[in-house]
Amino acid sequence: MAAPDTVVNLDEKFALFSDRWAPKTVGQLNDLQVKLVRTLGEFDWHTHEDTDEFFLVVRGRLTIELRGRADAVLGPGDFFVVARGLEHRPVATEECELLLLEPAGTVNTGDATDSTLTATEEWI
Amino acid sequence: MAAPDTVVNLDEKFALFSDRWAPKTVGQLNDLQVKLVRTLGEFDWHTHEDTDEFFLVVRGRLTIELRGRADAVLGPGDFFVVARGLEHRPVATEECELLLLEPAGTVNTGDATDSTLTATEEWI
Repeated sequence: MAAPDTVVNLDEKFALFSDRWAPKTVGQLNDLQVKLVRTLGEFDWHTHEDTDEFFLVVRGRLTIELRGRADAVLGPGDFFVVARGLEHRPVATEECELLLLEPAGTVNTGDATDSTLTATEEWI
Repeated sequence: MAAPDTVVNLDEKFALFSDRWAPKTVGQLNDLQVKLVRTLGEFDWHTHEDTDEFFLVVRGRLTIELRGRADAVLGPGDFFVVARGLEHRPVATEECELLLLEPAGTVNTGDATDSTLTATEEWI
């Protein structure tokens, strides 16, 4: 776990892992955690009923499919907030490095309890 | 105010303003606001008693002086979380573009009520 009072460099943290769809926690402010994740391919459709979720693309491209809505298409330096309760599915046709913000304890697959992509919390 | 369901590009938002030490709100998740700010020179010493504060350098360099502690020195892609209750002063010897995270209603100058640098909330 990163010391809470340490300067954290995003690229140095991304260099520590190569697995995909497995968010790594790199910081926390109040109850909110800062997570980094690599994505490639299609995630599962899911919903977070109790929290909004923030996605910032650091490198690559990400499409966030939104149930009943136009896709959110993000490139480097773009962010998007998925409102609580909105079903969504991230899809990356090329590898994407993402910074996520969500409350501690948020499960990456939300209500998709049968997903094989559910990750456990891991600080790096 | 940005539509809550819009893709936001950081560089496009930074291009909309040039004033310094005046955070602009560009997004929100739950009660937390995403703010962009340009900094140059010395801010005032202040404390946020009720919240941690997240600083991510997008461009430039920032030193965060911390009362009784070693400075946090940040370059591009570095972030630091100032713990609640810790007196601090951001200093930028060159212009710096920052992304901040803090709860809605957080005043930039914290408890420094006589500061001339206190900003009002502004969405762009």
